[in-house]
Amino acid sequence: MTTTASSTALADLKRRLNLVSDLSAAGGLMNWDQETQMPKDAARVRGLQMASLAGLQHELFTGDETKNLLEAAEQQGAQSEIDADLLRVTRRDFDKATKLPTAFVEELVQAQNEAHHAWIKARADSDFAHFAPFLQHNLDLTRRYAELIGYDEHPYDALLDDYEPGMKTAQVREIFADLRERTLPLLKKIVAAGDAGDYGVLSRPFPAAAQREFSLKVAEEAFGLLPSFSRLDISAHPFQTNFSADDLRITTRFDEQYFPMSLFGTWHETGHAMYEHGVSRELERTPLSRGASLGVHESQSRMFENLLGRSRTFWRRYFDEFAEAAPDVAAGQDAEAIYRAVNRVEPSLIRVEADEVTYNFHIMLRFELELSLMEGQLTVADLPAAWNAKMQEYIGLTPPNDAEGVLQDVHWSAGLIGYFPTYTLGNLLSVQLLDAARQDSQIAAATDRADYAPLREWLRVNVHQYGRRRTPGQIVEGATGQALSADAYVKYLHEKYGDIYGLE
Amino acid sequence: MTTTASSTALADLKRRLNLVSDLSAAGGLMNWDQETQMPKDAARVRGLQMASLAGLQHELFTGDETKNLLEAAEQQGAQSEIDADLLRVTRRDFDKATKLPTAFVEELVQAQNEAHHAWIKARADSDFAHFAPFLQHNLDLTRRYAELIGYDEHPYDALLDDYEPGMKTAQVREIFADLRERTLPLLKKIVAAGDAGDYGVLSRPFPAAAQREFSLKVAEEAFGLLPSFSRLDISAHPFQTNFSADDLRITTRFDEQYFPMSLFGTWHETGHAMYEHGVSRELERTPLSRGASLGVHESQSRMFENLLGRSRTFWRRYFDEFAEAAPDVAAGQDAEAIYRAVNRVEPSLIRVEADEVTYNFHIMLRFELELSLMEGQLTVADLPAAWNAKMQEYIGLTPPNDAEGVLQDVHWSAGLIGYFPTYTLGNLLSVQLLDAARQDSQIAAATDRADYAPLREWLRVNVHQYGRRRTPGQIVEGATGQALSADAYVKYLHEKYGDIYGLE
Repeated sequence: MTTTASSTALADLKRRLNLVSDLSAAGGLMNWDQETQMPKDAARVRGLQMASLAGLQHELFTGDETKNLLEAAEQQGAQSEIDADLLRVTRRDFDKATKLPTAFVEELVQAQNEAHHAWIKARADSDFAHFAPFLQHNLDLTRRYAELIGYDEHPYDALLDDYEPGMKTAQVREIFADLRERTLPLLKKIVAAGDAGDYGVLSRPFPAAAQREFSLKVAEEAFGLLPSFSRLDISAHPFQTNFSADDLRITTRFDEQYFPMSLFGTWHETGHAMYEHGVSRELERTPLSRGASLGVHESQSRMFENLLGRSRTFWRRYFDEFAEAAPDVAAGQDAEAIYRAVNRVEPSLIRVEADEVTYNFHIMLRFELELSLMEGQLTVADLPAAWNAKMQEYIGLTPPNDAEGVLQDVHWSAGLIGYFPTYTLGNLLSVQLLDAARQDSQIAAATDRADYAPLREWLRVNVHQYGRRRTPGQIVEGATGQALSADAYVKYLHEKYGDIYGLE
Repeated sequence: MTTTASSTALADLKRRLNLVSDLSAAGGLMNWDQETQMPKDAARVRGLQMASLAGLQHELFTGDETKNLLEAAEQQGAQSEIDADLLRVTRRDFDKATKLPTAFVEELVQAQNEAHHAWIKARADSDFAHFAPFLQHNLDLTRRYAELIGYDEHPYDALLDDYEPGMKTAQVREIFADLRERTLPLLKKIVAAGDAGDYGVLSRPFPAAAQREFSLKVAEEAFGLLPSFSRLDISAHPFQTNFSADDLRITTRFDEQYFPMSLFGTWHETGHAMYEHGVSRELERTPLSRGASLGVHESQSRMFENLLGRSRTFWRRYFDEFAEAAPDVAAGQDAEAIYRAVNRVEPSLIRVEADEVTYNFHIMLRFELELSLMEGQLTVADLPAAWNAKMQEYIGLTPPNDAEGVLQDVHWSAGLIGYFPTYTLGNLLSVQLLDAARQDSQIAAATDRADYAPLREWLRVNVHQYGRRRTPGQIVEGATGQALSADAYVKYLHEKYGDIYGLE
């Protein structure tokens, strides 16, 4: 009797978790559709629908039935490792989610939806004042969120934990300080060395349709993204989302006078998509069936975008096909010229277009502003000035307008505060993982021919398949034998850019 | 106290109905996405997700909380006419839906999803045997559905009532018999008269992109479908769906050697979309916020497609723009030639391409086969032969293969049995409504200039705005002063085709 009753509890729990997962997929589809397909007059009702379904999802996950089933299943104990992992992660999510009242979750989603639309308009008009009240609302809700969730040291810990389970604000401060200390001198050396390169090639015309075709060809052939389980659309801010491991949606935007945006952007989102595609089908429609954290996710996107897509060996392999797709760009160029052009180090205004050396300084800036906002040391009204001051301090530039400054990113409009640090954590991890994979000489040799199939398989086995069964820390330790550190990334930057800029 | 408690009941009931409506919108979006955007490998999980959310929607609508709120709200009585209508229609839907167990609804959705995919393959291969077991499953479930819902006279009444509330099988038999008696002689006369027309113009090349542009231009300018609240995509079988009154999705398919398919198809779906767009915003996210019945819906699509889109006055107005969009088609032609070509009467195999005179015979055939299947007088295995025999009897043709015969329509794969008769009911109503609107001389004059704005406003006021507040019967009586009959349609056919074919 006990066994039967408890087996039923686990099976019933799984069915309930499937339902929650299906609601999440529906919400994800509504969001993807809103960003890529939806007629604009539909926004008002869509916002109401998304808020209402998010509330329902929260209610179903946090309701008494889930609580009782979870307790009953825990009492019986799991019969398999996967079930044990499922119970552990579900318990963690449940305890966290039950701290949030349904009405609060609905308010959050509705506010974020409104802020997102305000941000689109504000960015188009470079009008921060239009966005400010919506950002203030998001910030107020985020503060309430941190209080509801709870934290030991810093309210920001409660936010970080959503994106990077187990990571603390103090740790991020430390890693960022280490990274700053060891890469700021490199950046200064590069800037001081001067740069005689001719980068006009990057703004030569490359029609959108041809950009799309070439970037998808590479995404398929090199990175494994096939149209039978994916699609590429256009949106204001590129993103990846998925509604199952076989239903991957990535987006991009095209600039016909600056091809790196869509090319590297598409390969970046492909890295995210292939992570989700690699999660074991055994975890389907459960809380385990997605990436372990944003940092681990970003390590995959950055690997495809930068470590592979911006490598010398990649451009040797793909130059001829690139030249065929973009004859105006390639005229009089060779693989080495494109390699150097797409790796230009240049302090600039826009995070998503930043090179590998300056990128992390964009992140440090956002991290510090978020901390100040959360601590109440900085008001929303003073945010643009604070942004511009930090840009001057780290990057040496002052944005001419807020569209190219504080309004450039979608994140705050979507309530994603505490999210930015994971970009830099992902950068660090990307090199640490690639170094580990290359310990296998066959993987190293294939990668040096721009044949990434063996590397992708290593990533699937060592990272992707686990979904959320392992914590980010466990994945990093398991795959690389070490804890996350800035060492590999610092070494990578010095070697790559020392070579390009003839330093040392 | 009583007032407060009961007002709360109505408000709570509305919130719950909003949630059910939002789940329905999510399911609709998942379906639209599956038909127009989704990568093919995503189909397996999407099917599970759709079945699970349909089950949840059913459970929420039929649960004890809805029951109690509905009873409490009814006890209090409505404070407005809209609320009274909401309570009445919700009670009708609730009583019907509570007859279906959740597990049955989930099985239904899952079976229909599987059958739909089997049908796509079967039609492509013209392989009825591949589809047969899925159709059998759908049919078995439909029979169980009719028993669960209940009926007085004929199990088919239970099906009809879903699509055409209040309509009985016996009535349909009667109206169809009347229509057959009064239009079969006309069809025979036309066929006997012979046809010296040259219809090669219909298969002249008209590139898909230009078809799309012209059909959308007309849909916007003549029929009011603006891109701010709508979009047009491609799917295997054209359809209209919507997720709010301002989020209308229509689909089409292009044949570059037969332009009438996408042109008239797009205007047909535009008629459906504009009906949904015209429903009062006061009814948003409630059970009242859609068209009253499929027949009333079809009256709107047929009016745009046939009564307007295939009118002589339309082609006089739009010929020059058509000629610009399709110079190869228009070469050596004039408005009258295109008018006659697109109104060719010719017995043919495919329902969706049938002319106005033969169309209803395609429907009678399906109606009679459905009755035989439901009564058990016909087996699924014998269906293709029965189809072909009836085609010979009514249309005078035998399909060369099942793809052009019994497999041509999507409906049975989607479990839509009892749906076909509404097409003919809609045809009859379309003329009855247009005749009523034209009693207003200003509407008649504008319509004769192909300015349909006054007619559209009349439709909005007399038909669209009510959503499901009025029954189909009430709408027809209210708008035309008479019950639905075949009279107006029979007169229309005789006048239009008597003129074209020089009869009488």
